[in-house]
Parts: sequence; C-alpha cells; structure tokens
Amino acid sequence: MLQTRRMLLTAILLLTAMYTAMAQMPKLERIEPAFWWTGMQEPMVQLIVHGDKIAAREVSLSYPGVTLQEVHKVENPNYLFVDINIAAAANPGTIPIVFRQKGQKDIVYQYELRKRENSSKAQGVNSSDLVYLIMPDRFANGDKSNDVIKGMQETSLNRDSMYKRHGGDIQGIIDHLGYLQDMGVTALWMTPLVTNDQPSASYHGYAATENYRIDPRFGSNEMYRRLADSLHKRGMKLIQDLVHNHIGSQHWTMKDLPMSNWVHQWPAFTRSNFRAAPLMDPYSAAADRKLMTDGWFDVHMPDMDQSNPYVRRYFTQSHLWWIEYAGVDAFRLDTYPYNDADFMAEWGKAIKAAYPGFTFFGEVWVRSGPEQVFFSQGNTVNRGFDSQLPGTTDFQSLWAIAAALNEKPGWDDGVVKLYSTLVQDYQYQDPMRNVVFLDNHDLSRFYSVVNGNKNKYKAALAWLLSTRGIPQLYYGAEIGMKNFSNPDGLVREDFKGGWAGDTLNKFTAAGRNAEENELHDYISKLANYRKNNPVLQTGKLMQFIPQDNVYTYFRYNAEKTVMIVMNPNEKEMAMLTARFTERTTGFSKARDVISGNSVPLADSLRIPAESTLVMELER
Amino acid sequence: MLQTRRMLLTAILLLTAMYTAMAQMPKLERIEPAFWWTGMQEPMVQLIVHGDKIAAREVSLSYPGVTLQEVHKVENPNYLFVDINIAAAANPGTIPIVFRQKGQKDIVYQYELRKRENSSKAQGVNSSDLVYLIMPDRFANGDKSNDVIKGMQETSLNRDSMYKRHGGDIQGIIDHLGYLQDMGVTALWMTPLVTNDQPSASYHGYAATENYRIDPRFGSNEMYRRLADSLHKRGMKLIQDLVHNHIGSQHWTMKDLPMSNWVHQWPAFTRSNFRAAPLMDPYSAAADRKLMTDGWFDVHMPDMDQSNPYVRRYFTQSHLWWIEYAGVDAFRLDTYPYNDADFMAEWGKAIKAAYPGFTFFGEVWVRSGPEQVFFSQGNTVNRGFDSQLPGTTDFQSLWAIAAALNEKPGWDDGVVKLYSTLVQDYQYQDPMRNVVFLDNHDLSRFYSVVNGNKNKYKAALAWLLSTRGIPQLYYGAEIGMKNFSNPDGLVREDFKGGWAGDTLNKFTAAGRNAEENELHDYISKLANYRKNNPVLQTGKLMQFIPQDNVYTYFRYNAEKTVMIVMNPNEKEMAMLTARFTERTTGFSKARDVISGNSVPLADSLRIPAESTLVMELER
Repeated sequence: MLQTRRMLLTAILLLTAMYTAMAQMPKLERIEPAFWWTGMQEPMVQLIVHGDKIAAREVSLSYPGVTLQEVHKVENPNYLFVDINIAAAANPGTIPIVFRQKGQKDIVYQYELRKRENSSKAQGVNSSDLVYLIMPDRFANGDKSNDVIKGMQETSLNRDSMYKRHGGDIQGIIDHLGYLQDMGVTALWMTPLVTNDQPSASYHGYAATENYRIDPRFGSNEMYRRLADSLHKRGMKLIQDLVHNHIGSQHWTMKDLPMSNWVHQWPAFTRSNFRAAPLMDPYSAAADRKLMTDGWFDVHMPDMDQSNPYVRRYFTQSHLWWIEYAGVDAFRLDTYPYNDADFMAEWGKAIKAAYPGFTFFGEVWVRSGPEQVFFSQGNTVNRGFDSQLPGTTDFQSLWAIAAALNEKPGWDDGVVKLYSTLVQDYQYQDPMRNVVFLDNHDLSRFYSVVNGNKNKYKAALAWLLSTRGIPQLYYGAEIGMKNFSNPDGLVREDFKGGWAGDTLNKFTAAGRNAEENELHDYISKLANYRKNNPVLQTGKLMQFIPQDNVYTYFRYNAEKTVMIVMNPNEKEMAMLTARFTERTTGFSKARDVISGNSVPLADSLRIPAESTLVMELER
Repeated sequence: MLQTRRMLLTAILLLTAMYTAMAQMPKLERIEPAFWWTGMQEPMVQLIVHGDKIAAREVSLSYPGVTLQEVHKVENPNYLFVDINIAAAANPGTIPIVFRQKGQKDIVYQYELRKRENSSKAQGVNSSDLVYLIMPDRFANGDKSNDVIKGMQETSLNRDSMYKRHGGDIQGIIDHLGYLQDMGVTALWMTPLVTNDQPSASYHGYAATENYRIDPRFGSNEMYRRLADSLHKRGMKLIQDLVHNHIGSQHWTMKDLPMSNWVHQWPAFTRSNFRAAPLMDPYSAAADRKLMTDGWFDVHMPDMDQSNPYVRRYFTQSHLWWIEYAGVDAFRLDTYPYNDADFMAEWGKAIKAAYPGFTFFGEVWVRSGPEQVFFSQGNTVNRGFDSQLPGTTDFQSLWAIAAALNEKPGWDDGVVKLYSTLVQDYQYQDPMRNVVFLDNHDLSRFYSVVNGNKNKYKAALAWLLSTRGIPQLYYGAEIGMKNFSNPDGLVREDFKGGWAGDTLNKFTAAGRNAEENELHDYISKLANYRKNNPVLQTGKLMQFIPQDNVYTYFRYNAEKTVMIVMNPNEKEMAMLTARFTERTTGFSKARDVISGNSVPLADSLRIPAESTLVMELER
C-alpha cells in the first residue's frame, strides 16, 4: 500500500518534470485558425501563433499568390500575430510557414489552404422560418461514448443536478431532426457548442475555452458539420450562438495572456451593472457606461477588451470560419448590448460583406422599446450611428403577451399592451427581422407564466405563430414543459425520451399524455399551416385597436387573408366585425385553421374565453 | 299683470319680426380678421366675409400697395373668402372694401391696416422659465361687473358647482402677478380665454365660439393685451392655449356653415377613439386612423376638417393675429395628436417663419415614449416627416415621477422608471423643450397622487424644478391643493382668496395655514433659486443609475454644480459618493438649497426618508 503510494508520487513528479521540460522547448503550441480558404472575400487572414518564446523567431513563407503581410509582436513573447494575404488566384494547398531563430532548429508549420465548399450556404433566417432553441446537454443523448471525456475539467455526469452535465449531444439532435421537421420547425438554434472546459457549469456553453472547437462532450467539428448537412438536406437551417462579450475563465488564452488588454482588467473583480440604459442615455456618466461594457459578466467570464484589434480579428475570423467550415446559416449574438458598439458594427459589416445572404440577431434583454430599438440597425432613431444589427430578440412583445394574458384589462393594459408594442415598430428599419418568443433558457417557461392555463398557453402559441417576426420555440414548449427561471436551472430540464433508459419518451405520441399530445398537435398544426402558407410568413400585418380586451389582427397577401382574434377574457365574447371591412370585404366565411370548421363571417363572431382564433377567410 | 304680460309678448313678437327683416336685408355680418398689419412676413391675408347672399356681390378695393388677389365663392352663398395682398411698402390706413351688386346699395367695409407694435415680443418660452397654469374662471375674480353678460347663453354663476362659471377673470390674474412673480413664476399659461358662448360648461374654454374675441366674462381683447403688457413689464411671458382640433357647437360658423367640409360630418354622432397609436402604427387600419383624427372630441365639440384650406387659413391667421395683437410669447397646443399632421407641420412652419423667436408645445397625452416622440419635431425617429413641433407636454416623466414615489422598488420599478424615462431622451431633437409637470386641469393633483404625503410631494416638486425641460406648475400646487380628476372638475376648485368675500385668502402668508406656508415657501425658495441660477435652467444634466431606490443626478455648467438626490424610501439612506467623481471632483461641501446648511461631501451622504435634496456643491 505504502509502496503503491510512493510509486504514484514518483510518477507524478516524473510527469511534472517532463511537462516542464517540454514547455521550455521551443515549439508551436497552436496556430488559429488552423486552416483557411482560398477565394474568401477578405484576402487577409491573421494567424494567432502561440509557442514558447515564439516572438524571438523570424517568420517566412513562400507560396504562389500568398504573401506574408505583417508579423506583429505583442507584450507576451509567446505570441505572434501573423497577417498573411491570399490572392484571389491562389490555389488550395499547403503553405509551409517557417519560424526561424539563429542557433535553433527551424519550426515549420504546414498551413492548409482549402477550397471553399459551403459558400452557397449562409442563407440567413427570416420570417418564413420557425426557430427551435435547444440546450444540447438537455435535449437528447445520442452518443454515450462522449458523456465523459478524460482530461477535461468537468467529468461528472449527474442528471439529478441542474448544474452538472447531463450528456446530451449533437448526435442526439441529429437523431430527432425528423421529429422537429414534422412539427414544422425550419431552423435550429443551439446554445453554444464550442468547448467549455470549465471546472463547473460547463453544460450551458457560454464560457468558451476554445473558439474553433466543438466541445468533445457534444461531439466534434466534423459532427457539427454533419448536423449542418443533415439540416440542409431537409431544407432546414442552422443558427449558431455566438458570444463576443466574454470567454470562460479557463479559455486557452487566459492561461498565457497575449497582452494585458486581451480582457478587461480591474483592480478587483468587477461585475457589469447589467444596465444597457447608459449606452443610449444622453445624460449618462462615463463610469456607468464603462461598467456596463467592461465589467465582467460573472467571475468565471472574463470580459473581452474589444478595443483591442487582435481581439477583434480573432473573434471575427473564428465566426467567418464557422460559416465557411460548417455552412452555418445565421448567428444569434449573446449579450449583445454588453459589447463595444463600434466593434459590433465593424463585425456586422465584415460578416455581411463576406456572406451577403447571411443574417444574425442580437439578444437585447431590455425593458422598453426605445432601449431595444437603439441596438437595431438602420439609424432609425436619433443616434447618428448604424449598429448593423438586422434583428433583435423581441423582449418587448414577450412582456406584452404576458401582460395580454395575465393582466386585468384597462385602457392601457391587457391586450392593449400587445397592440401598443407593435405600434412601436414604426421605429424599426424592418421589424420582421426581430425574433419573437415566449421563453428561452434564461426565462420562465411560458406555460408557467400563464399559471398552467392550457387555453391561455395555446392562445399565446397562436399569437407567436401568426404575429410579425421570426418565431422561436424553446425545446419542450410543444409538450407543455413548465417551470420558473428562478431558482436557476429548472427551465433546463431534460427532454424526456432523449436518454436511453428514460421511462417516458415524449418524442412519440405514445409516450406523451393527453395534454402533451394536445399541445404538440396544436403547435404542429399551426406551425405546418404557417410553413405551407406564406401569408403567415411574409404577409402584411394589419391590427385594429382592441375593444373589450379583444385583439384582432390580420395577415394578408395577394392570395390569402388570415384573421386572428385574441380573447384572453374569462368569458366568451361576441365581437362585432363591421369595423374590419378593410380586410374582410369579399369574404363570407372564416375557417378555423385548427379545427377546420368554417363559420359565416357574420356581423358578430363568437370568440371563446381565453383563446386565440386563427381563421383563414374564404370567399 | 295680464296687461304687462301681453305687452311683453307683443314686444318680443315685434323684436323677432325686426330681427327677421334685418337678417333678410343684404348686409355684412362679419369680416375676420377685423384688421391686419402692414409689414407682416406673409403678404397675403384671407378675409372670411359673412353676410346674407354676400357671394352675389362683386368685391373691389383701391389702396396703394394693396391688391385684391382672389375672391373665393364657396358652397354657402353667405360667405366669401377674400385674399388681399399687402405689399411691404403699404402704409397703415383704412382700406375701403366695396361689395357691389346691380340694383343694390353698395356695402363698403372700412378695413383697418395697422402699424405693427409687438413684433419685438414673441420671445418664446424655454427651460429658463417656470410656467404657471391657470384656469381663469377659477383663479381670481378681479371684476365682478363681467361675471354675467346679458345675451350670452350661460348666465348662471354658481361657485358650488364644478360645471358652472365661478367668475374668475383676466383682471383677477393681473391683480396677482406680483404674487406669482415673487414665487419665481416667469410665464403664465391660461386655459383658453376666447369666447365660449356655449349653453353649458363654458368656463373651461375648450369649446370656442369665436376665434378673435376674448370671452367678455373674462374681460376683453384690450384687457388681454393689458395682461400681456403687465407680464412683459415684469419680465414675464404669456402663453396662449390654442385648440386647432375642434370648436364649440355654438361657434358662429356652426350656425351657418361656410361649406359642408368645414367640420367633419358623420352620418350619426361619432366620437374619436382617443387613440394616437394608429397614427404611427405601421400596421394600422385606415378606419382607426380616421376615427382618431376625424371623430368628434365630444358632442359639443365639432371636429374641424383640417384638409380644408379655408379652415387652415382661418385658424392660422387667427393665431398670427393674437401674437401680433397682444404680444403673445408662446402657444400651448391642445389635443395635439388629434390634428391632421400635415396641417400642423404647415402651421408650425408658418408660425416660425413669421416669428422666429416664438415657441410652442403640444399636449401629447400618451402612454409611451415612442408615442410621445413621434409627434415631436426633427424627424428623430423613422417617420420621414417633420412635425415642426418643438416640444411636447412630457407625460412620460409624469407617469415616471408618480411611479418613483409610489411604487415598490425593483430592478425596473421605483426611481428607476424616472431614470429610464430620461434615458429615452436620446430620441428627441432637444428634450429641453419638453414641458415637465406634476398635474394640470385634466389630471389628479399630485399632492393627492402621493396620498397627501407632504415629504413625497416636496420630493416631487424638487425634481420638477431641477430636472431637464420647462417646468410647469398648476395653480394651487403651491398651497397643496388636492383632489382627483375623477369625478371630473374637483381639480378645478377656486383659489381661495381670489373672490371678494372669501373667508380665507391663500395669496397671503397670513391666510395660509402652516402646511400651506411650508409648501409655498418651499416652492418659492426652489423656484427663485432656479430663477437666479442658470445652472438649473440650462445646465447640462448627468444622471447615474439608481441604487437602492435612490436616484442621483447633477445639473452643471461652467460656474456651478448642483447635486440632486431623490430618496423615496421610507427610511433614511446612507449613499456612497465615490461613483460620482465625474461631477464631484474639486468640491468639498454640499449646501442644501432649501435649508442653506452645508455638509461635507464625504464618502457617504445621509439622505432623509421620502425626500429629494437639492444641493449646490462648494469648493
């Protein structure tokens, strides 16, 4: 026993000595991006080169059409930033990059220059889509072999803890694409899949430790590309979740910072004030603005210094790389307001220049329309600056749908809030690009927000799938998963049936109970109606001033007119139709999209209590 | 007795016959404007001429520099609209305008062309001012002789009824200018003084029956001009309340409409929907927009058809006339959103062109910042149209100050609402032109809104007099008058002491009780500090994110810095000052503007419960 311990100790000491020796040897730890493509829109790529005292070496390369543009030495001699210029005519191949130091052996890195494959992707998401948000760790475990990866910091798998990994992965998602497609989903947004090799809470993905690698517990870069291909084959799209604002405290650069201003450094740990307001406030204090953008999101999430051009390049290139490598169609931008506005505008321009069809939307979690619109593109308000952000997550309509269904009606309350929120759309360049939703991984599930009232929940879903914008569902919404965001984590429960051995399988009708099937079928019907009818995707919207807490709007195009009536009241309402003639003239019947039943478009329509009717008008 | 009655009856019949005979005789009932000036910016003036079958007559005039530009016949032959052009060089004098018909006697109207007197007035109101709003019928009765005017429709005087006339008048206001000036008031806004010869509720002034005449129960045109002169002599300003949207049902033109589209005609009485939202809503129905602008404000308030060029001219000229005649300094525009936007823009341009220093602000009674800013000038939002409206009544900060003082604090609630409302100022071309207020004749008095809590009321007053914009007090605010707007009228009580025989006189310290004097002195002190210190008028504003429901902001200029701290909490708060260094550096003391006491500007300041401290910083 004692001997065993001694042997172990000796082994550890030996290994430590070997590691130290290796670290002292001049060698190349990493070059990122690991490869690039010929024929990219921007000819220059900046390589981040990390290696022990690498800055002491001269860099050279020789390859037809490729030139070494500039080599930047920075504070930390273990880094070089190497700008190489790739002419449009350069052929794919391997570029030997030589790092030379007198009296030392050359280091030669064989840099791969690939041929572009996915340039026809990057198709963007728009209001024709239905986005489905998945937390990959909690959706389905398709590959048990990657549940625990040796050598990573968090190796415990514990499905009973909301903060531990549960084992869900990319294969699990691929396995259920048919389920999602049948439901009418057209685009997937996963919370970040890049490596989060953090000691705790690594499952959520928002503390990246790598920018170019899928977390091995989710799969691999190749498997991510396979997910993209599978989606595209089905006519579906892939949305990647990006975090510009921060990285994980265990990010590889944090262990050997390239320079002191790689991340924002504070005398003592300093958290953001989480207030976007000072960024637009004409009266704000510099201190409040600085805290918002430069304070850390959390102790384990260092805040990037986005005024640093090396940081900018590193992030932007990694995003271009993912589009090109995997064929990503759109980005969702995490914690958008916390970023430097000028960086995000520059970034937006770069992405749009490289992939004109690509789109992205920013998480703008704020309380008022003026705060939300401030971040959107088009200089639609008195800002003198274009953010280049096509769309925002529409938190304003979320607050409003909750008010519509839960509030006591009043002149300004109840469904009027929903109506009034859309009125404010006049401030947007194109409100159709905003993403509407009822919940996500940070918010209480909407079924709980309406206190488990099934009718109200369906009323909300009907609104979601018929109002303007890009609708987004959160996994499990279709089976009425519940819970509140506080305490943390409960809204991130596993999708039952995603794990071998789960006693219930909610992916199948047989595994769902009656209520779950009712909700699932309701969403499927509406989502597929939406998918098959452009009128609900791109049709014009006309809304009428609510009366008696009943809210009526229309979606219409040259082919079809759909009338939507929301009645959150506790009683059936008889609604007079005379004032809707602008949209109802020429029609004689209204067919309920869910039941298929037609009713005459009479002077008065009966709207059941706590419901939203979606009716296609018929001649 | 019987004989007396019979004589009376005979007399009435005789008089009726005479009146009928006169009405049938060709004669000129009225020309408006009754006179005009030489050297006005716009050379053309359009006279509305009303007289029995006047359209059958030829119009001619002969006067050096004056030409008859055009004579318009309209639907009703009892009207002519006569455009005359007055060259810049024309001399003041009398223009004989001849109305000729074959076989009839000429009608000759001696039209007066005056020399301009008041062109140096029209100075505008701005954030240097403190506006005091008076309902003239309810403030002070300075002239008992005009309490009842024979021949007018409402002749009953009843101070016990909120809907009857009480007898207040212009003389009553003139009598108390010293009182107002001493308090720090610099500008008066009276609810409309033009004739409201309506059978009921004529006291409020918003149902005009004349555009060019002061209601004789308030005084006369000459007395109004005297009020203006008295104000100007004191360095004070006159704000006139205008109603573009509607007139009274007994307006002189309503008895013999010039044309059917003089006012909006509906098949049956149709009220406005009172919703400004459809005007900006990109999804609005035409029916909702039409109802808002063309529906009547009330049964006794016909809605002007502002698409009618004769209506436009008639109103605009009357407004120019009042500026020129009385030397008005600014306008307050009633029910602003109910007007046609393009008319109001055209009107705004005309006023600005004629009087470049003149200003005006619109009553924009809406629930959200985006709704309010939509109406303001400068095309600061995605509208593609400039309203030409320099300022709005800032209802948003009113909702916010009420929330700040009454709400349970929270991440988005309590004083944060006040802070957030000012954040939205980034959407305005110049938010300093907005009018801030706690109450007015349509709203609950703020002392009641804070449930009679004296400290909170003072906290609100301190905010009002130190935040950005043009502050406005409502008469009686200084003595803590209370009441709620519902039921109607209770917020329009008489100012005690304004009537001979009032047992109490609140215009004097002796007549006020201790609480009234405390409030009066508090306002006077702050208002005079504001009046004497440009820093609170035009100084820059810097506000900090509230903490612990304590809101701190600064007004500052090259000379002075004033720190304002609002603590609506029920307990004293110790506030750390370190984060305010941007504004406090170089100062060592803070002197309370009310008490005059200085305290060291230490690391922590003690802020009493339910109070707003206004402190001038000292070196």
